[in-house]
Amino acid sequence: MDIRDATSADWAGIWSVMEPIIRAGETYTLDPDSSEESLRAKWLHLSGRGRTFVAIDDDGAVAGTAELHPNYGGAAAQVANAGFMVHPGHGGKGIARALANHVLEQARTDGYRAMVFNAVVASNVRAVRLWQSLGFEILATIPDAFDHPVDGLVGLHVMHRKLD
Amino acid sequence: MDIRDATSADWAGIWSVMEPIIRAGETYTLDPDSSEESLRAKWLHLSGRGRTFVAIDDDGAVAGTAELHPNYGGAAAQVANAGFMVHPGHGGKGIARALANHVLEQARTDGYRAMVFNAVVASNVRAVRLWQSLGFEILATIPDAFDHPVDGLVGLHVMHRKLD
Repeated sequence: MDIRDATSADWAGIWSVMEPIIRAGETYTLDPDSSEESLRAKWLHLSGRGRTFVAIDDDGAVAGTAELHPNYGGAAAQVANAGFMVHPGHGGKGIARALANHVLEQARTDGYRAMVFNAVVASNVRAVRLWQSLGFEILATIPDAFDHPVDGLVGLHVMHRKLD
Repeated sequence: MDIRDATSADWAGIWSVMEPIIRAGETYTLDPDSSEESLRAKWLHLSGRGRTFVAIDDDGAVAGTAELHPNYGGAAAQVANAGFMVHPGHGGKGIARALANHVLEQARTDGYRAMVFNAVVASNVRAVRLWQSLGFEILATIPDAFDHPVDGLVGLHVMHRKLD
Protein backbone atom coordinates (compact mmCIF):
# COMPACT_ATOMS: atom_id res chain seq x y z
CA MET A 1 0.00 0.00 0.00
CA ASP A 2 1.64 3.18 -1.24
CA ILE A 3 0.45 6.40 0.42
CA ARG A 4 1.49 9.68 -1.13
CA ASP A 5 0.38 13.27 -1.73
CA ALA A 6 -2.43 13.51 -4.27
CA THR A 7 -2.05 15.34 -7.56
CA SER A 8 -4.86 16.74 -9.67
CA ALA A 9 -4.39 13.70 -11.95
CA ASP A 10 -5.64 11.53 -9.07
CA TRP A 11 -9.07 13.14 -8.99
CA ALA A 12 -10.91 10.52 -11.09
CA GLY A 13 -9.64 7.80 -8.76
CA ILE A 14 -10.43 9.83 -5.64
CA TRP A 15 -13.94 10.51 -6.91
CA SER A 16 -14.56 6.79 -7.51
CA VAL A 17 -13.84 6.32 -3.79
CA MET A 18 -15.79 9.35 -2.59
CA GLU A 19 -18.90 9.25 -4.74
CA PRO A 20 -20.62 6.18 -3.21
CA ILE A 21 -19.77 7.41 0.31
CA ILE A 22 -21.12 10.92 -0.31
CA ARG A 23 -24.25 9.68 -2.10
CA ALA A 24 -25.05 7.23 0.74
CA GLY A 25 -25.04 10.20 3.16
CA GLU A 26 -24.46 8.01 6.21
CA THR A 27 -21.04 9.07 7.49
CA TYR A 28 -20.33 12.65 6.43
CA THR A 29 -22.16 15.89 7.25
CA LEU A 30 -22.13 16.81 3.58
CA ASP A 31 -25.08 17.15 1.26
CA PRO A 32 -25.47 13.75 -0.52
CA ASP A 33 -26.41 15.68 -3.67
CA SER A 34 -23.23 17.78 -3.64
CA SER A 35 -21.76 18.29 -7.09
CA GLU A 36 -18.52 16.58 -8.03
CA GLU A 37 -17.04 20.02 -8.75
CA SER A 38 -17.79 21.43 -5.27
CA LEU A 39 -16.39 18.32 -3.58
CA ARG A 40 -13.29 18.41 -5.78
CA ALA A 41 -12.61 22.01 -4.72
CA LYS A 42 -13.16 21.09 -1.08
CA TRP A 43 -11.24 17.81 -0.91
CA LEU A 44 -8.27 19.00 -2.99
CA HIS A 45 -8.16 22.35 -1.09
CA LEU A 46 -8.12 24.31 -4.32
CA SER A 47 -8.51 27.44 -2.19
CA GLY A 48 -7.23 27.73 1.34
CA ARG A 49 -4.62 25.79 3.26
CA GLY A 50 -4.73 22.00 3.25
CA ARG A 51 -3.31 18.90 1.62
CA THR A 52 -4.65 15.68 0.20
CA PHE A 53 -3.37 12.11 0.18
CA VAL A 54 -4.12 8.91 -1.71
CA ALA A 55 -3.57 5.24 -0.88
CA ILE A 56 -2.69 3.32 -4.03
CA ASP A 57 -3.37 -0.42 -4.30
CA ASP A 58 -1.22 -3.03 -6.06
CA ASP A 59 -3.01 -2.37 -9.37
CA GLY A 60 -2.19 1.34 -9.20
CA ALA A 61 -5.76 2.37 -8.40
CA VAL A 62 -6.86 4.79 -5.67
CA ALA A 63 -8.21 2.64 -2.82
CA GLY A 64 -8.53 5.42 -0.25
CA THR A 65 -7.97 9.11 0.27
CA ALA A 66 -7.46 11.57 3.10
CA GLU A 67 -7.15 15.31 3.55
CA LEU A 68 -5.61 17.49 6.25
CA HIS A 69 -6.34 21.16 6.99
CA PRO A 70 -6.52 23.60 9.91
CA ASN A 71 -9.74 23.09 11.86
CA TYR A 72 -9.85 26.76 12.84
CA GLY A 73 -8.23 29.99 11.68
CA GLY A 74 -6.36 32.73 13.48
CA ALA A 75 -4.90 31.90 16.87
CA ALA A 76 -6.22 28.32 16.69
CA ALA A 77 -4.78 27.40 13.30
CA GLN A 78 -2.39 24.87 14.82
CA VAL A 79 -5.24 22.46 15.50
CA ALA A 80 -5.82 20.20 12.51
CA ASN A 81 -8.85 18.50 11.09
CA ALA A 82 -8.77 15.60 8.67
CA GLY A 83 -11.11 13.56 6.52
CA PHE A 84 -10.78 9.95 5.39
CA MET A 85 -12.54 7.86 2.78
CA VAL A 86 -11.89 4.26 1.80
CA HIS A 87 -13.62 2.60 -1.13
CA PRO A 88 -16.42 0.36 0.20
CA GLY A 89 -14.92 -2.54 -1.83
CA HIS A 90 -11.60 -2.15 0.00
CA GLY A 91 -12.83 -2.30 3.61
CA GLY A 92 -11.12 -4.45 6.23
CA LYS A 93 -7.65 -4.19 4.66
CA GLY A 94 -6.28 -1.63 7.11
CA ILE A 95 -6.30 1.16 4.52
CA ALA A 96 -8.04 3.64 6.83
CA ARG A 97 -5.57 2.91 9.62
CA ALA A 98 -2.58 3.26 7.28
CA LEU A 99 -3.94 6.55 5.95
CA ALA A 100 -4.60 7.78 9.49
CA ASN A 101 -1.07 6.99 10.64
CA HIS A 102 0.32 8.77 7.60
CA VAL A 103 -1.86 11.85 8.17
CA LEU A 104 -1.06 12.00 11.90
CA GLU A 105 2.65 11.88 11.11
CA GLN A 106 2.29 14.52 8.41
CA ALA A 107 0.26 16.76 10.74
CA ARG A 108 3.05 16.61 13.33
CA THR A 109 5.62 17.44 10.66
CA ASP A 110 3.50 20.37 9.50
CA GLY A 111 3.48 21.80 13.03
CA TYR A 112 -0.04 21.01 14.15
CA ARG A 113 -0.30 20.50 17.91
CA ALA A 114 -3.57 18.57 17.99
CA MET A 115 -6.25 17.08 15.76
CA VAL A 116 -10.00 17.45 16.16
CA PHE A 117 -12.86 15.71 14.37
CA ASN A 118 -15.96 17.91 14.69
CA ALA A 119 -18.64 15.50 13.63
CA VAL A 120 -18.03 11.75 13.78
CA VAL A 121 -21.41 10.07 13.26
CA ALA A 122 -21.97 8.08 16.45
CA SER A 123 -23.45 5.09 14.61
CA ASN A 124 -20.28 4.83 12.49
CA VAL A 125 -18.91 2.47 15.11
CA ARG A 126 -15.97 1.21 13.07
CA ALA A 127 -14.66 4.73 12.56
CA VAL A 128 -15.16 5.65 16.23
CA ARG A 129 -13.24 2.52 17.31
CA LEU A 130 -10.46 3.20 14.82
CA TRP A 131 -9.97 6.75 16.13
CA GLN A 132 -10.06 5.57 19.71
CA SER A 133 -7.42 2.93 18.95
CA LEU A 134 -5.28 5.73 17.51
CA GLY A 135 -5.48 7.79 20.69
CA PHE A 136 -8.51 9.97 19.99
CA GLU A 137 -10.92 10.65 22.81
CA ILE A 138 -14.62 11.51 22.55
CA LEU A 139 -14.75 14.94 24.21
CA ALA A 140 -18.47 15.45 23.64
CA THR A 141 -21.43 14.24 21.63
CA ILE A 142 -23.79 16.72 19.98
CA PRO A 143 -27.06 14.95 20.77
CA ASP A 144 -29.44 13.90 17.97
CA ALA A 145 -27.61 16.11 15.49
CA PHE A 146 -27.47 13.70 12.55
CA ASP A 147 -30.63 12.33 10.94
CA HIS A 148 -29.15 9.08 9.66
CA PRO A 149 -31.05 7.62 6.69
CA VAL A 150 -31.23 4.19 8.38
CA ASP A 151 -30.59 4.70 12.10
CA GLY A 152 -32.59 7.91 12.57
CA LEU A 153 -31.37 10.65 14.89
CA VAL A 154 -27.89 9.88 16.22
CA GLY A 155 -25.25 12.02 17.90
CA LEU A 156 -22.13 13.60 16.41
CA HIS A 157 -18.94 13.00 18.38
CA VAL A 158 -16.28 15.65 18.84
CA MET A 159 -13.03 13.66 18.99
CA HIS A 160 -9.58 14.97 19.89
CA ARG A 161 -6.00 13.97 20.34
CA LYS A 162 -2.80 15.88 21.01
CA LEU A 163 0.02 15.44 18.54
CA ASP A 164 3.06 16.02 20.73
CA MET B 1 -32.81 48.94 19.58
CA ASP B 2 -34.09 47.86 16.18
CA ILE B 3 -32.93 44.43 15.02
CA ARG B 4 -33.57 43.46 11.43
CA ASP B 5 -32.20 41.49 8.50
CA ALA B 6 -29.08 43.05 7.02
CA THR B 7 -28.93 44.31 3.45
CA SER B 8 -25.80 44.79 1.37
CA ALA B 9 -26.14 48.52 2.10
CA ASP B 10 -25.39 47.76 5.77
CA TRP B 11 -21.91 46.42 5.04
CA ALA B 12 -19.97 49.62 5.86
CA GLY B 13 -21.69 49.77 9.26
CA ILE B 14 -21.19 46.06 9.89
CA TRP B 15 -17.51 46.33 8.98
CA SER B 16 -17.03 49.22 11.44
CA VAL B 17 -18.25 46.80 14.14
CA MET B 18 -16.29 43.79 12.91
CA GLU B 19 -12.95 45.28 11.98
CA PRO B 20 -11.62 46.07 15.48
CA ILE B 21 -12.84 42.68 16.76
CA ILE B 22 -11.21 40.74 13.91
CA ARG B 23 -7.97 42.72 14.06
CA ALA B 24 -7.67 42.17 17.84
CA GLY B 25 -7.85 38.40 17.21
CA GLU B 26 -8.92 37.61 20.76
CA THR B 27 -12.41 36.16 20.37
CA TYR B 28 -12.77 34.61 16.92
CA THR B 29 -10.88 31.75 15.27
CA LEU B 30 -10.39 33.88 12.18
CA ASP B 31 -7.14 35.21 10.79
CA PRO B 32 -6.73 38.77 12.21
CA ASP B 33 -5.28 39.78 8.83
CA SER B 34 -8.32 38.54 6.88
CA SER B 35 -9.30 40.86 4.05
CA GLU B 36 -12.50 42.88 4.31
CA GLU B 37 -13.67 41.23 1.09
CA SER B 38 -13.29 37.66 2.40
CA LEU B 39 -15.07 38.53 5.65
CA ARG B 40 -17.84 40.30 3.76
CA ALA B 41 -18.45 37.15 1.68
CA LYS B 42 -18.43 35.02 4.82
CA TRP B 43 -20.54 37.20 7.13
CA LEU B 44 -23.15 38.11 4.49
CA HIS B 45 -23.30 34.48 3.23
CA LEU B 46 -22.82 35.58 -0.36
CA SER B 47 -22.53 31.91 -1.25
CA GLY B 48 -24.23 29.15 0.69
CA ARG B 49 -27.17 29.16 3.06
CA GLY B 50 -27.27 31.67 5.88
CA ARG B 51 -28.66 35.04 6.95
CA THR B 52 -27.32 38.15 8.60
CA PHE B 53 -28.79 40.61 11.08
CA VAL B 54 -27.99 44.10 12.34
CA ALA B 55 -28.84 45.93 15.55
CA ILE B 56 -29.43 49.62 14.80
CA ASP B 57 -28.95 52.24 17.51
CA ASP B 58 -30.99 55.42 18.03
CA ASP B 59 -28.76 57.34 15.61
CA GLY B 60 -29.39 54.81 12.84
CA ALA B 61 -25.89 53.31 13.05
CA VAL B 62 -25.01 49.61 13.18
CA ALA B 63 -24.16 48.84 16.82
CA GLY B 64 -24.00 45.06 16.45
CA THR B 65 -24.42 42.26 13.98
CA ALA B 66 -25.15 38.54 13.93
CA GLU B 67 -25.29 35.74 11.39
CA LEU B 68 -27.04 32.38 11.34
CA HIS B 69 -26.21 29.36 9.19
CA PRO B 70 -26.26 25.54 9.28
CA ASN B 71 -23.34 24.24 11.35
CA TYR B 72 -23.16 21.08 9.25
CA GLY B 73 -24.44 19.90 5.89
CA GLY B 74 -26.35 16.84 4.77
CA ALA B 75 -28.28 14.94 7.43
CA ALA B 76 -27.15 17.37 10.16
CA ALA B 77 -28.20 20.60 8.43
CA GLN B 78 -30.90 21.27 11.01
CA VAL B 79 -28.30 22.20 13.61
CA ALA B 80 -27.48 25.89 13.43
CA ASN B 81 -24.39 27.92 14.15
CA ALA B 82 -24.34 31.65 14.73
CA GLY B 83 -21.85 34.47 15.15
CA PHE B 84 -22.24 37.72 17.06
CA MET B 85 -20.28 40.96 17.12
CA VAL B 86 -21.00 44.11 19.10
CA HIS B 87 -19.01 47.29 18.63
CA PRO B 88 -16.54 47.64 21.53
CA GLY B 89 -17.92 51.15 22.17
CA HIS B 90 -21.43 49.72 22.67
CA GLY B 91 -20.67 47.07 25.29
CA GLY B 92 -22.84 46.61 28.39
CA LYS B 93 -26.05 47.82 26.73
CA GLY B 94 -27.59 44.39 26.25
CA ILE B 95 -27.07 44.46 22.48
CA ALA B 96 -25.50 41.00 22.35
CA ARG B 97 -28.35 39.55 24.39
CA ALA B 98 -31.00 41.22 22.23
CA LEU B 99 -29.28 39.95 19.07
CA ALA B 100 -29.01 36.47 20.56
CA ASN B 101 -32.69 36.33 21.45
CA HIS B 102 -33.59 37.49 17.96
CA VAL B 103 -31.32 34.91 16.32
CA LEU B 104 -32.58 32.07 18.54
CA GLU B 105 -36.17 32.95 17.64
CA GLN B 106 -35.31 33.19 13.95
CA ALA B 107 -33.47 29.86 14.07
CA ARG B 108 -36.57 28.18 15.52
CA THR B 109 -38.73 29.78 12.82
CA ASP B 110 -36.30 28.57 10.15
CA GLY B 111 -36.66 24.98 11.38
CA TYR B 112 -33.36 24.47 13.17
CA ARG B 113 -33.61 21.98 16.03
CA ALA B 114 -30.50 23.03 17.94
CA MET B 115 -27.66 25.52 17.93
CA VAL B 116 -23.96 24.77 18.39
CA PHE B 117 -21.00 27.08 18.89
CA ASN B 118 -17.85 25.21 17.85
CA ALA B 119 -15.19 27.46 19.28
CA VAL B 120 -16.03 29.87 22.11
CA VAL B 121 -12.72 31.17 23.45
CA ALA B 122 -12.68 30.08 27.10
CA SER B 123 -11.15 33.35 28.31
CA ASN B 124 -14.04 35.28 26.71
CA VAL B 125 -15.86 34.98 30.02
CA ARG B 126 -18.59 37.50 29.25
CA ALA B 127 -19.62 35.61 26.13
CA VAL B 128 -19.54 32.24 27.91
CA ARG B 129 -21.75 33.63 30.70
CA LEU B 130 -24.15 35.18 28.22
CA TRP B 131 -24.59 31.89 26.35
CA GLN B 132 -25.04 29.98 29.60
CA SER B 133 -27.70 32.47 30.74
CA LEU B 134 -29.48 31.81 27.42
CA GLY B 135 -29.57 28.05 28.00
CA PHE B 136 -26.36 26.95 26.29
CA GLU B 137 -24.28 24.26 27.93
CA ILE B 138 -20.53 23.68 27.59
CA LEU B 139 -20.43 20.15 26.12
CA ALA B 140 -16.64 20.03 25.85
CA THR B 141 -13.52 22.16 25.82
CA ILE B 142 -10.83 21.61 23.18
CA PRO B 143 -7.78 22.00 25.43
CA ASP B 144 -5.15 24.66 24.68
CA ALA B 145 -6.52 25.13 21.19
CA PHE B 146 -6.41 28.95 21.03
CA ASP B 147 -3.16 30.87 21.41
CA HIS B 148 -4.66 34.06 22.82
CA PRO B 149 -2.48 37.15 22.21
CA VAL B 150 -2.71 38.15 25.89
CA ASP B 151 -3.80 35.06 27.85
CA GLY B 152 -1.67 32.48 26.02
CA LEU B 153 -3.03 28.99 25.35
CA VAL B 154 -6.68 28.71 26.33
CA GLY B 155 -9.40 26.20 25.51
CA LEU B 156 -12.21 26.44 22.98
CA HIS B 157 -15.65 25.56 24.31
CA VAL B 158 -18.18 23.60 22.28
CA MET B 159 -21.54 24.99 23.46
CA HIS B 160 -24.99 23.65 22.62
CA ARG B 161 -28.66 24.17 23.22
CA LYS B 162 -31.79 22.60 21.83
CA LEU B 163 -34.30 24.89 20.17
CA ASP B 164 -37.57 23.06 20.78
